[in-house]
Amino acid sequence: MSQINETIVAIATPPGQGAIGIIRFSGNVAIEIVDKYFFGKNLSKVEGNTVHYGKIKNEEDQMLDECMATVFRAPRSYTKENSIELSCHGSPYILSEIVKLFIRNGARMAKPGEFTMRAFLNGQLDLSQAEAVADLIAAENASTHDLALKQLRGGFSNIIKTLRQELIDFSALIELELDFGEEDVEFADRTKLKTLVIKIQKVMQQLIQSFQYGNVIKNGVATVIAGRPNAGKSTLLNALLNEDRAIVSDIAGTTRDTIEESLNIEGIKFRLIDTAGIRRAQDAIEKIGVAKTKEKINTSTLIVYVFDVTESKPQDLWDDVHEFLQVNEDLQLKSKKLFVANKMDLNPYTELESYYKDGLIDAKNLLSASAINKMNIEALKRLLYQNVIDNSEMLDQTIIVNNRHFEALHNASTSLSKVLHGLDIGLSPDLVAMDIRQSLYSLGEITGEISSDDLLESIFSRFCIGK
Amino acid sequence: MSQINETIVAIATPPGQGAIGIIRFSGNVAIEIVDKYFFGKNLSKVEGNTVHYGKIKNEEDQMLDECMATVFRAPRSYTKENSIELSCHGSPYILSEIVKLFIRNGARMAKPGEFTMRAFLNGQLDLSQAEAVADLIAAENASTHDLALKQLRGGFSNIIKTLRQELIDFSALIELELDFGEEDVEFADRTKLKTLVIKIQKVMQQLIQSFQYGNVIKNGVATVIAGRPNAGKSTLLNALLNEDRAIVSDIAGTTRDTIEESLNIEGIKFRLIDTAGIRRAQDAIEKIGVAKTKEKINTSTLIVYVFDVTESKPQDLWDDVHEFLQVNEDLQLKSKKLFVANKMDLNPYTELESYYKDGLIDAKNLLSASAINKMNIEALKRLLYQNVIDNSEMLDQTIIVNNRHFEALHNASTSLSKVLHGLDIGLSPDLVAMDIRQSLYSLGEITGEISSDDLLESIFSRFCIGK
Repeated sequence: MSQINETIVAIATPPGQGAIGIIRFSGNVAIEIVDKYFFGKNLSKVEGNTVHYGKIKNEEDQMLDECMATVFRAPRSYTKENSIELSCHGSPYILSEIVKLFIRNGARMAKPGEFTMRAFLNGQLDLSQAEAVADLIAAENASTHDLALKQLRGGFSNIIKTLRQELIDFSALIELELDFGEEDVEFADRTKLKTLVIKIQKVMQQLIQSFQYGNVIKNGVATVIAGRPNAGKSTLLNALLNEDRAIVSDIAGTTRDTIEESLNIEGIKFRLIDTAGIRRAQDAIEKIGVAKTKEKINTSTLIVYVFDVTESKPQDLWDDVHEFLQVNEDLQLKSKKLFVANKMDLNPYTELESYYKDGLIDAKNLLSASAINKMNIEALKRLLYQNVIDNSEMLDQTIIVNNRHFEALHNASTSLSKVLHGLDIGLSPDLVAMDIRQSLYSLGEITGEISSDDLLESIFSRFCIGK
Repeated sequence: MSQINETIVAIATPPGQGAIGIIRFSGNVAIEIVDKYFFGKNLSKVEGNTVHYGKIKNEEDQMLDECMATVFRAPRSYTKENSIELSCHGSPYILSEIVKLFIRNGARMAKPGEFTMRAFLNGQLDLSQAEAVADLIAAENASTHDLALKQLRGGFSNIIKTLRQELIDFSALIELELDFGEEDVEFADRTKLKTLVIKIQKVMQQLIQSFQYGNVIKNGVATVIAGRPNAGKSTLLNALLNEDRAIVSDIAGTTRDTIEESLNIEGIKFRLIDTAGIRRAQDAIEKIGVAKTKEKINTSTLIVYVFDVTESKPQDLWDDVHEFLQVNEDLQLKSKKLFVANKMDLNPYTELESYYKDGLIDAKNLLSASAINKMNIEALKRLLYQNVIDNSEMLDQTIIVNNRHFEALHNASTSLSKVLHGLDIGLSPDLVAMDIRQSLYSLGEITGEISSDDLLESIFSRFCIGK
């Protein structure tokens, strides 16, 4: 952290041409550094939170651009340091020339996430909030956006800090016992400690369980659409996507593999994987692509198995499904299976019950539809949604989405289990204290009360440049 | 222009994720519209050119983002209207949600270039300066950047305005003669008028001639690298690109066809077209691509013909070149031809003079080299540069880069030729006045003193959204 006094600079807007491009500076002498090449106003003397028009000229007095400079004075800035933002014409060439000018003259290139890292180090936000900033930028839909905003506002941090404080208070008593070493006194009421640990464990377990749900929100629900050729998979896919396609495609950065489409149902992203597309891909050379797709199928959360009621007798369906599950064996255990009896318009009197099979198909996961007429498509969407959000109270609860948090919580919980066990068997206070300390350490990692340079490095290196 | 009071909104930063995303508003009530959903500060009451932290919440009181709002008050803003810029987290999702919020609540989506169009309509800049803004954003290297900045500062506009004013003063006298109709008086001294028109014509011709050069700066110099297989074309290309490749590729948006590479020599972009690549492409199916490449060859400004001194005797070279020029017949007339005697390291005693051929190859356009050892590569770059910038005084002169300006100047010049002719044959003042008026009209179109909605529409629709 010795470089904290260095002035850092970076382009903060996305790459490419645009109307406006922002260059951001932070550091004790950031304003002075910019001021030297900014003509139109003496920035060193202006108040914080003000904006000024001027020209950036290089060492040879050549104008690089006309721009607006926003001055922020410590501690009223994102990093809590003196900061300055130049709003320039959005030309990658101009932006890069200006950055080069200042790198030649006292600033250095910011590392990814370094502005936010300084904000963290200067106490503007804690580690979990800093991570929320990156999540917020990556937010692609209402759910991920809400999660990131909640985390940014610190709800999750507060829960962790409260848990940790309660533990600290109690561990202080245990540590006191250690000071009295030989005398065999008990300052900490073992029953109360046990109750506390059990309470904390419960909260932790809830958070740990929320991770799976959080993961779904963050990464979307991988949903395989399977079935025989001509069962109507593509028609169903189109029917599902139809209304949302425009919305999906106006979000820049949405990954669009040829065989994967995104569908947004009430803010949850479903990644629909068209297995018809896989067969087509196999005709071509791209073996690697196919292997990747198979992997996607095997890590899917949902299968939508489509069959044609005019073609498939119940036994055919059961055989097909059996074969599909055998080929993709990993699916059998983990994925939820939904069945769509398609082309019901051609055979409106089909008895759905005839397709039921114990442990595989029943009234709850079988839906009749006519993809071509969009019949029951909305019902299918509801079914998809319900199969992900099975306990709706989840929605109001704090949800963790971050692998690092999950791991830290998991470690903290394991340590607490040891504490409980130690209390049960009357372990000596120094050993119990050790487990409590370990648990405190894990919790502290989440908010950054305990952090190492390596940890910070690994967190912030995932940020984009300029944040 | 009746919608001028509407508040317009647009995302002003490039698409994609970034640290910061800017949403821009302009219009009489822009500040009030934003203020209604901005919490943290009463923006309606703050001074212009100040920045404020706050939260954007939607109609249901849900927070969409934390952001910084910069308030500009008319006329101290880019558009000279009340304006506001929201600096948000750079998530495409968030930015689009915020834009939607304000579109539901009083703003409308800005058309491409509409902010700059308002700046023009409100007299902040003239039409040629407005066009320079778009060029500035598209600037990819030092030369295009300089040209755009010069134009933005209005040098070119001033020349045109001066020419136009001189013409107006004189035409006023001619128009006066018309008022006196029957009386056959001459207020305008015909000799003086002729001298003036000739002077103006000369300045115009310089500008018109500068267009070819301006075009080169703006679009780069198409340079074909030709020669037999194994003459060392690709090695030469690599040698030329080696030092600049990094610089070229860190500019986002650089077009990179498979057979075209960009090389920057002292700020001039050379688009090197590798004809080796064409042959390879022909093996594949892409006939259209090949046709396009042929077109590129035929519109090239430079040919670099490479031959292997260990393989090609003078007669071979002459025959090859003859054949190449026959196949690409359009090239013969327009392009400059440079010859590179390659692999000189293998045959260091080659007599270059033996390759000379009248009207085709001489000391000035033949260079010995060894691409693999990078021998004479710098000399080749100098030769390329000299062949484009043959009159170096061009560099200090005003240069036009814009097709529209070229056309308008050309029309103005044609009208003035008619004026001159009319004066020579003693044409009646009303006909001379008509030609002068036509010329004034054409000149006025450049700076926008004369403009139609259609013209404005066609100019500003080429801008990016948010500018």
